[in-house]
Amino acid sequence: MIDSSNHDTVQEGDIAQLVGLRHAFHLVNLKAGQSVHTHRGILKHDDLIGKPWGTQVFSHTGSPFFILKPSIADIIRSTKRNTQIMYPKEIGFLVITMGIGPGSRVIEAGTGSGGLTQALAYMVGETGLVFSYEKREEMQRLAKTNLATLGLEKRVIFKLLDIENGFEEKGVDAIFLDLPNPYDYLPQVRQALKSGGYFGTILPTTNQVMKTLVELRRNTFAFTDVCELMLRYYKPEPDRLRPTDRMVAHTGFLLFSRKIHQENESISQFEEEKE
Amino acid sequence: MIDSSNHDTVQEGDIAQLVGLRHAFHLVNLKAGQSVHTHRGILKHDDLIGKPWGTQVFSHTGSPFFILKPSIADIIRSTKRNTQIMYPKEIGFLVITMGIGPGSRVIEAGTGSGGLTQALAYMVGETGLVFSYEKREEMQRLAKTNLATLGLEKRVIFKLLDIENGFEEKGVDAIFLDLPNPYDYLPQVRQALKSGGYFGTILPTTNQVMKTLVELRRNTFAFTDVCELMLRYYKPEPDRLRPTDRMVAHTGFLLFSRKIHQENESISQFEEEKE
Amino acid sequence: MIDSSNHDTVQEGDIAQLVGLRHAFHLVNLKAGQSVHTHRGILKHDDLIGKPWGTQVFSHTGSPFFILKPSIADIIRSTKRNTQIMYPKEIGFLVITMGIGPGSRVIEAGTGSGGLTQALAYMVGETGLVFSYEKREEMQRLAKTNLATLGLEKRVIFKLLDIENGFEEKGVDAIFLDLPNPYDYLPQVRQALKSGGYFGTILPTTNQVMKTLVELRRNTFAFTDVCELMLRYYKPEPDRLRPTDRMVAHTGFLLFSRKIHQENESISQFEEEKE
Amino acid sequence: MIDSSNHDTVQEGDIAQLVGLRHAFHLVNLKAGQSVHTHRGILKHDDLIGKPWGTQVFSHTGSPFFILKPSIADIIRSTKRNTQIMYPKEIGFLVITMGIGPGSRVIEAGTGSGGLTQALAYMVGETGLVFSYEKREEMQRLAKTNLATLGLEKRVIFKLLDIENGFEEKGVDAIFLDLPNPYDYLPQVRQALKSGGYFGTILPTTNQVMKTLVELRRNTFAFTDVCELMLRYYKPEPDRLRPTDRMVAHTGFLLFSRKIHQENESISQFEEEKE
Repeated sequence: MIDSSNHDTVQEGDIAQLVGLRHAFHLVNLKAGQSVHTHRGILKHDDLIGKPWGTQVFSHTGSPFFILKPSIADIIRSTKRNTQIMYPKEIGFLVITMGIGPGSRVIEAGTGSGGLTQALAYMVGETGLVFSYEKREEMQRLAKTNLATLGLEKRVIFKLLDIENGFEEKGVDAIFLDLPNPYDYLPQVRQALKSGGYFGTILPTTNQVMKTLVELRRNTFAFTDVCELMLRYYKPEPDRLRPTDRMVAHTGFLLFSRKIHQENESISQFEEEKE
Repeated sequence: MIDSSNHDTVQEGDIAQLVGLRHAFHLVNLKAGQSVHTHRGILKHDDLIGKPWGTQVFSHTGSPFFILKPSIADIIRSTKRNTQIMYPKEIGFLVITMGIGPGSRVIEAGTGSGGLTQALAYMVGETGLVFSYEKREEMQRLAKTNLATLGLEKRVIFKLLDIENGFEEKGVDAIFLDLPNPYDYLPQVRQALKSGGYFGTILPTTNQVMKTLVELRRNTFAFTDVCELMLRYYKPEPDRLRPTDRMVAHTGFLLFSRKIHQENESISQFEEEKE
Repeated sequence: MIDSSNHDTVQEGDIAQLVGLRHAFHLVNLKAGQSVHTHRGILKHDDLIGKPWGTQVFSHTGSPFFILKPSIADIIRSTKRNTQIMYPKEIGFLVITMGIGPGSRVIEAGTGSGGLTQALAYMVGETGLVFSYEKREEMQRLAKTNLATLGLEKRVIFKLLDIENGFEEKGVDAIFLDLPNPYDYLPQVRQALKSGGYFGTILPTTNQVMKTLVELRRNTFAFTDVCELMLRYYKPEPDRLRPTDRMVAHTGFLLFSRKIHQENESISQFEEEKE
Repeated sequence: MIDSSNHDTVQEGDIAQLVGLRHAFHLVNLKAGQSVHTHRGILKHDDLIGKPWGTQVFSHTGSPFFILKPSIADIIRSTKRNTQIMYPKEIGFLVITMGIGPGSRVIEAGTGSGGLTQALAYMVGETGLVFSYEKREEMQRLAKTNLATLGLEKRVIFKLLDIENGFEEKGVDAIFLDLPNPYDYLPQVRQALKSGGYFGTILPTTNQVMKTLVELRRNTFAFTDVCELMLRYYKPEPDRLRPTDRMVAHTGFLLFSRKIHQENESISQFEEEKE
């Protein structure tokens, strides 16, 4: 469970991150009697439980690891590999841009493996709610497991439905579509979103962006932003400080837009052009 | 007040965003009897109160505006102009990277005009707490006003203290320093931060990054990441889709690191090198 | 004249660059009896002629300037402001990518104010030749003047023709189109370009890129690259080294492709995908 | 030999580029009786000689290739793998920024495997000259072979010397140092460079940039630019146009500066700050 405790020591039921030499990185859901197998040896959960967070532990072959509490970004990174293109940089930006925080009521589709669902559930807190739509049962099952592992399952209402038929909620604060064709569902989005509410989506190709821009105007959305985030890491060496050699060049284009109330012929005049 | 209501209509006490033709953008704290002066005419608060969110309103000269609920990013952008270099892109990324969410206990220094304070207070929710240190009284006063406007003042404990003398808290989840010389305060950070907790900072120059990297090692922090985020907007025109002509090239380098427990000679072996 | 002399001192007929405090930057075609007017005072050409290159000179108000021989990039930057989007970063990259050098025979259209023409004429040397097409007489006249100032007019054959009707050359080494609709002229390009030769273009929008990609395949071009170059400057301060605050985010997308001989159904298999 | 002929057909002695399915890319120096071995089969030079440039040829296993004349950028890319960090994007930009073209006299150190030497020799034409310094004999030998293959060896004077002892030329137009410690050789650079001439270097780390900036001022250089070039490729698919997933994030920082004549206490006032 994420944030299950403010104990200084590792407890059964906690999610722990084992970070080893170089890149080794393991998320572990701690249960008495179990063990974790790494490339650098085995560690027993029983030997980890009770240790202070942030201490060094050793595998049966003597390889050192640090045991740390993972952040929500660490968790997203480790569930990332399945289907999706959303990285912590995009998730952090969309959460803050769309005003998602404690108490927010948010719709998401599709659920996928639940990477974004985890972050949204974490951010809306105990007073908010995430409605997560998915039509593939096996994906939903995987996402449910991932959310339960974090202890966040009560904040998410999973729906095994095709959003073609609309959303069952009204007046939600924000809707994010992580689908290849968000442009097909904007009337449905409009019906479920509160007036002035935020719509967001992420799209890999410029062709998809174009189609979505056309449909946003047709469906009386305004104040649309299209952007992309590039994250560049540096080698953390004080006497040889330089960017890493390679980087992720593209995950997707982010689009944000707002549902406005009144139809307006010259809505394009309102487009903010940011630099 | 931010998120004061889930009313469909604008209420007295709400913070509203008036977005006009092209770039006009005004944040208004709605009070009966008052009015807002824009480049395109005057609008009376009384004419705004009661309107549905997302509708069009007009100034006394007939200029159109939409009245919208601002997101936390909109609010940060509008308080941004004072002293600081933190943009929503950095704030979104640090929040998610450092695992700051509902219930988190976070230290920040210096408060400045309170841009980051607003975001942190928003994100920690009613069950979390932000401890914000500042030694310049007039900056603290400004930040307090900004937080009170949002109705988030109860989530922040402002301290008019020099962090040279240490923090008054112990075991906080995360500490973010928005100061030119974070490298001078790492022993103090260590004392206040829980084991395994996240330290973060933002620095404009590579020289400051180098100094901080040296001191992080000296003070037994590990798993340090140095990165920068570049945000590029596109002109939202479906038939002429292209990036904007100019962009912000640099705000600052972000550093994240974790307090570990045990001293280790070869800590550098644990440095993750991300690409 | 550019590179007119290898004299150590400034001579009449030379093109000199006066670089003053901060950004002041003036290109001067030196003629006895004339003078240059700057924001920081007047300088007489007679006082400049005979000075060693690289020395400091002063305006009548005492403002200091350095007198330097401009590079071709300096010259392009100062003629840039008229119509075009090509910067030295793009020109340098296209020259080297398309293999343009001493002896090359190159077609360019449209001429515009002659920014690219200058660079191409400079690069092909005395043994190469640039054929520059333009249908607007006043633009051609401006470009002719610009080339004559550099003393490079003998390397360029200006044509006041619409390329809709084809090019008058055959077997040229490379063709670069700086036009909004290069996709309309690919059959003409094919006829003038030698087999295996390089085609290049620069386009501001993704829509134009898409159209051009479709037409390139239809006209049996292959090995197409689409790319963009981002140039980021740093403040050259050793104790505060950091990127500048703002940068040019977009000039255009560069496309390079090659005319191949044989038609091939599965030409897309040959597309190189560069990372 | 590069540009040996303007024949329409492939000739013995030509350098040809064989581009196959996906990424296969081979540079071949054509000699009767020889053959080239690729992952997709063998091709005999005799079967290539006489073919029109740009046509399709087949290996003994039936794999298709196109035979093309390589550009200087293609050649640099294929010799790149040895020691160096210079890519065509940097080379194109430095050539145009430092005003290197037909007739230029340029010093380069170290020679390395000769990637930059090839480009410089190509660009200075038959009327220019490259002086290339290297102290490791085996590297010089490799570079000599590479230049001879291109038929450009007459444009380069190779020197097996340590530049610590200075350069043997005076008044050259430009000097480029591709060395880890250019800051140690600026007095030597000053002696060989003409007044007003261009100095350039490429450096991987910010620490090296800082040191060089300090020494440039100490040695009366001015108008220093520090920059980096980022090249982003797109997948050339008209119906799925998008950037490639990954990119080169860093090769090096480029520094350009000019030798000025007179010493000046406030030289920093003249620094151009480009955006």
